[in-house]
Amino acid sequence: MRILVVGASGTIGANIVKQLESKHDIIRAGRNGADVSVDIMSPDSIASMYETTGHVDAVINASGGANFRTVSELTPAWNEKGIESKLKGQLNLVLIGQDYMRDGGSFTLTTGVMMDDPIPMGASAAMANGGVRAFVKAASIEMPRGIRINSVSPNIAEESWDRLGNYFPGFTPVPAAKVARAYVKSVEGAQTGQNYDVYQ
Amino acid sequence: MRILVVGASGTIGANIVKQLESKHDIIRAGRNGADVSVDIMSPDSIASMYETTGHVDAVINASGGANFRTVSELTPAWNEKGIESKLKGQLNLVLIGQDYMRDGGSFTLTTGVMMDDPIPMGASAAMANGGVRAFVKAASIEMPRGIRINSVSPNIAEESWDRLGNYFPGFTPVPAAKVARAYVKSVEGAQTGQNYDVYQ
Repeated sequence: MRILVVGASGTIGANIVKQLESKHDIIRAGRNGADVSVDIMSPDSIASMYETTGHVDAVINASGGANFRTVSELTPAWNEKGIESKLKGQLNLVLIGQDYMRDGGSFTLTTGVMMDDPIPMGASAAMANGGVRAFVKAASIEMPRGIRINSVSPNIAEESWDRLGNYFPGFTPVPAAKVARAYVKSVEGAQTGQNYDVYQ
Repeated sequence: MRILVVGASGTIGANIVKQLESKHDIIRAGRNGADVSVDIMSPDSIASMYETTGHVDAVINASGGANFRTVSELTPAWNEKGIESKLKGQLNLVLIGQDYMRDGGSFTLTTGVMMDDPIPMGASAAMANGGVRAFVKAASIEMPRGIRINSVSPNIAEESWDRLGNYFPGFTPVPAAKVARAYVKSVEGAQTGQNYDVYQ
């Protein structure tokens, strides 16, 4: 398969590539992507990326961010990164990318544990995650041409613990390689409309 | 209690007002609100509404919309109404309104059945609903001054069946009065971080 991985150089993205590259043709995308650059906050940039890649058999997104602020500090403006990047950025990879997806292909997006197991300062990220999960479930019933769509909800990765562990008090991190296997299940399997939790 | 109801003239809003007005002081808000006008898609309009109302003990939102389109037809632009109205409109009622909320007060937002039981053309609305549910759960753990936050997820109302039933094939509608009781539970009860399903 010809698989576009957005966020290919991140902790999770790199593990996804590692598990898929021996069997598939991988296109690495990201803000400074090895094969193609994209800013998922810009629909024009997403369209330009797909024009460069042409048709693909699968799109995996392992990118997207949100601001971490307490609710008291979270203004409409601080919430915008989660809206534009982690939520709309991911949806637009699907809405714009469906025209470049081959029959029977798949989209796999990324949600995250804080929508189910909230952490302080995580409300904006949780909002984006919950929006993506619900979109995936609803969109799956009417994707055209046998195209599938799933999401993966990772816990904090062991590899990110030194940098981000303080945001996840009492959580037990999971290996990024284990998280990556859920993306392989989405791409190489046949399920649709699923959100694969990798919390343990 | 002094309760601000946004969307007070809608099918669900009118039933909420009916069940609360004998015991509480109700402020009716909406695009052409009886007491105060607000366009929830505009943060400035929301701020202006709260400046008019002053402090309140509860905010209920029963407004917000999204475009109904198949995924094939759903462009980033068609998705914007769900983003700006049903998702950000509701979040901004909380983010801007928290400064006007009395200690121990409550916010009650509205999600909807299509996030759990998808319908054709409902992906954008489902996205907004899922985002609101996850925000409510995450925000609840750190709302300041004992402020609570919940959402209500209605099925299609019996009163809306003639107008909207075609969008909900095979669904069994519920009375709007029953939906309204979930908002009463949120306001007069003591729970937080909940999404009350009223599907049956």
